[in-house]
Amino acid sequence: MKMDLNSDLGESFGAWSMGDDAAMLDIVSSANVACGFHAGDPAGILKTLKAAKARNVVVGAHVAYPDLVGFGRRNMDIGSADLVASVIYQIGALQGLAQAAGTTVRYVKPHGALYNKIAQDKRQAADVIKALLELDPSLVLVALAGAPLIQWARDAGLTVVAEAFADRAYTPAGELVSRTLPGAVLHDEKEITERMVKLVREGCVTAIDGSTVRIEADSICVHGDSPGAVSIARDLRARFERENIQIASFVQ
Amino acid sequence: MKMDLNSDLGESFGAWSMGDDAAMLDIVSSANVACGFHAGDPAGILKTLKAAKARNVVVGAHVAYPDLVGFGRRNMDIGSADLVASVIYQIGALQGLAQAAGTTVRYVKPHGALYNKIAQDKRQAADVIKALLELDPSLVLVALAGAPLIQWARDAGLTVVAEAFADRAYTPAGELVSRTLPGAVLHDEKEITERMVKLVREGCVTAIDGSTVRIEADSICVHGDSPGAVSIARDLRARFERENIQIASFVQ
Amino acid sequence: MKMDLNSDLGESFGAWSMGDDAAMLDIVSSANVACGFHAGDPAGILKTLKAAKARNVVVGAHVAYPDLVGFGRRNMDIGSADLVASVIYQIGALQGLAQAAGTTVRYVKPHGALYNKIAQDKRQAADVIKALLELDPSLVLVALAGAPLIQWARDAGLTVVAEAFADRAYTPAGELVSRTLPGAVLHDEKEITERMVKLVREGCVTAIDGSTVRIEADSICVHGDSPGAVSIARDLRARFERENIQIASFVQ
Amino acid sequence: MKMDLNSDLGESFGAWSMGDDAAMLDIVSSANVACGFHAGDPAGILKTLKAAKARNVVVGAHVAYPDLVGFGRRNMDIGSADLVASVIYQIGALQGLAQAAGTTVRYVKPHGALYNKIAQDKRQAADVIKALLELDPSLVLVALAGAPLIQWARDAGLTVVAEAFADRAYTPAGELVSRTLPGAVLHDEKEITERMVKLVREGCVTAIDGSTVRIEADSICVHGDSPGAVSIARDLRARFERENIQIASFVQ
Repeated sequence: MKMDLNSDLGESFGAWSMGDDAAMLDIVSSANVACGFHAGDPAGILKTLKAAKARNVVVGAHVAYPDLVGFGRRNMDIGSADLVASVIYQIGALQGLAQAAGTTVRYVKPHGALYNKIAQDKRQAADVIKALLELDPSLVLVALAGAPLIQWARDAGLTVVAEAFADRAYTPAGELVSRTLPGAVLHDEKEITERMVKLVREGCVTAIDGSTVRIEADSICVHGDSPGAVSIARDLRARFERENIQIASFVQ
Repeated sequence: MKMDLNSDLGESFGAWSMGDDAAMLDIVSSANVACGFHAGDPAGILKTLKAAKARNVVVGAHVAYPDLVGFGRRNMDIGSADLVASVIYQIGALQGLAQAAGTTVRYVKPHGALYNKIAQDKRQAADVIKALLELDPSLVLVALAGAPLIQWARDAGLTVVAEAFADRAYTPAGELVSRTLPGAVLHDEKEITERMVKLVREGCVTAIDGSTVRIEADSICVHGDSPGAVSIARDLRARFERENIQIASFVQ
Repeated sequence: MKMDLNSDLGESFGAWSMGDDAAMLDIVSSANVACGFHAGDPAGILKTLKAAKARNVVVGAHVAYPDLVGFGRRNMDIGSADLVASVIYQIGALQGLAQAAGTTVRYVKPHGALYNKIAQDKRQAADVIKALLELDPSLVLVALAGAPLIQWARDAGLTVVAEAFADRAYTPAGELVSRTLPGAVLHDEKEITERMVKLVREGCVTAIDGSTVRIEADSICVHGDSPGAVSIARDLRARFERENIQIASFVQ
Repeated sequence: MKMDLNSDLGESFGAWSMGDDAAMLDIVSSANVACGFHAGDPAGILKTLKAAKARNVVVGAHVAYPDLVGFGRRNMDIGSADLVASVIYQIGALQGLAQAAGTTVRYVKPHGALYNKIAQDKRQAADVIKALLELDPSLVLVALAGAPLIQWARDAGLTVVAEAFADRAYTPAGELVSRTLPGAVLHDEKEITERMVKLVREGCVTAIDGSTVRIEADSICVHGDSPGAVSIARDLRARFERENIQIASFVQ
């Protein structure tokens, strides 16, 4: 059995630091690296890419809306021409820096508001899919498990990897519980670890109402934006190793 | 006999337009395309790249300091790690968009203050050279004719193309007359055309003091930021054609 | 009889110019001056403010979403704390520059997507209203004629001026015809002029279906973003003068 | 005896936090609040201003070059028209937010590269002085103790407060030891405290060569960008209180 662990990295910006990239790169098999639109300056991105290369962590482009002050978390009515070109621009920039770091961009995981938007919104989803097809159809798209985006992207010819979230509660329908609702974010290390082992072994998790819900996921997103989050991710990796669940990227 | 004509393109930004890219792409053999740091938004850059591709105009990356409001024209004390990574980031972004447009980035021409700075400044020059070597050593560097940068870059293993300016006066030492001095910028179409024919045929121009100065250049920069500038560039091309000077890129 | 004419000015940015501020300041009685979030750099804004002062044109703050590349025309899910503070920040910045120019910011007209959003959206409307109340309750708010915003702002204690658009078609319900529909934007100088005279004299315009619709407006927005637009605005002013309609600001 | 303690605050930006503003506001008498050009977003600035107001800490504008990614620490060849207007813009924006917070901007302390540049550079110094005179000549300018700027600004009619740095070594000439040299930054709490008591009592500090040098300063800058820095600042305040040195702003 194997599972990919991914995390958002390279999110420092100039004098501002965010997350503990070095610690997380010892835990995950895939690094979603910021591309400068929601976070990440070129020198910081390059540093993270070199660290990922040194640990053989696979690199993906964490593309976003152009919104530094909002950290890419705000919905934005961006037109198709702008969205397609912005996604290509960001992946290309990361590919350039990856080349300098001796590694390669293998997948794309949209960030924040863009991630959530294209999970459901056909027009913006089509724009992101088009960007990957025009730049490099071999780029894998990482998408929310259960979202319509997955089929749309597969129909367009892309390889898609479905993703679950280690620290998020799920509805009985297999959707994420909105962050605005109580219980949406899990904090208990043991509970998180148990849930993820069950996800790998049985392909399901316990929903917020106690029912069991199927989640087909080939990657689990873990966070590293606080010491507590790093600790949870580290525990999850250790538990997976004890359970003989191999932590490995979805790309070879 | 042949000569390259290059021009700065893709310099619109969002709602703001600049230059007449379509007109200039009918004139030049090389397009220095903005990369988003001094000008150019992704959708506008992509549009310019597609237009360049349609006319078989060779594409280069017009990399710059991160200074939109100053249009990359202000000197900036940027550190080496930031400069190296910023140049790679910009070229990579343009490579991505060029791929989507069906073309390729073949050369790099730094813009504005960065262009002038690295012509003489060994540290920043080394940073830009390093960026090209780390990303792709086959990228040609376009540099100011007569500048120390040319030898520095050749010593580092890069192919360098020296560039002259159609509408600028030269000192007897072969340097550009500072824009702060009278007579620095030429406006007379006939004078400009005659000078450039002489440059191609004899490898020299008349300096501002009337003396003759050697300028070894394989490319001539023409501007397109006003209707008058476009007209001068068009006249220059027509004159070259009448003189059997082939207008062709320095890359094959 | 009197009417205010307002126009969006100060929208150049760095090396990029937009509109003919000098020409428009000879036509309008109120200048909506960009504040740097969708357009306008400090030096350009200051220049426009000095020109407005020289012609005794009243100055307002043209506040916007933080979106330079989108020119403030894209809807953005900005939170209340950010929106309130962003509006205050922009007005304050303009007040500072106005002070240096010897004039004063007398009103606020939101721009683009923010303008349209708060016309109908109670939450974002409340944020903008709160910003004005916290900064200076004597600031007049310019709002779309017929929009719910007008009553919301009056209920909150603000002075509100309703605005009509010289070059836009209206529905029978008194709303603007969406720009995505044919006939939404008028281009005929004579038609535009006749409509606006009728608006001033009779308080109504002919809707797109031929019916007559009441529009209560104390200001008319004219555009100056092309030579044709400037010409239309100039004609409108000349016609108003012939009709003895005084062109004067809504503030004294 | 009394002394002002000032610190750089409001330097978070969107999702990125920096410093512990709440802790520092319990220590200092003057808050240099970021204005959005090197750091600070409107909502974060407003929050810091409200916290300063709640503790009766005097507020100043920490104006900077327009360089978020470089945190305003890089020299920039900005022209006079741009610099004058940029300084006014930033102070105005902060005045607006201060008004909403129930407080007032009383002084201006340039930040980073701009601070160091105008200490010695007459042209950029004149631009900053002009900005204050045009906006509000009653604004106090905080400047590096011993710098030519102090006299230039006084000659122009401004009130100037000279500033010393608690954690920086001084040359025998009374200048700051460059950060590129060993020993430039002090880390020992006891040494820092002793030096500052001596500064207040005797108007001098021990220079890096062991000699005694006069420093005429009415304000001491303390940092709060790390837990260690906050601790040093807190110790300094406590020691001052034990020594009956009143901590109070230079404005009344």
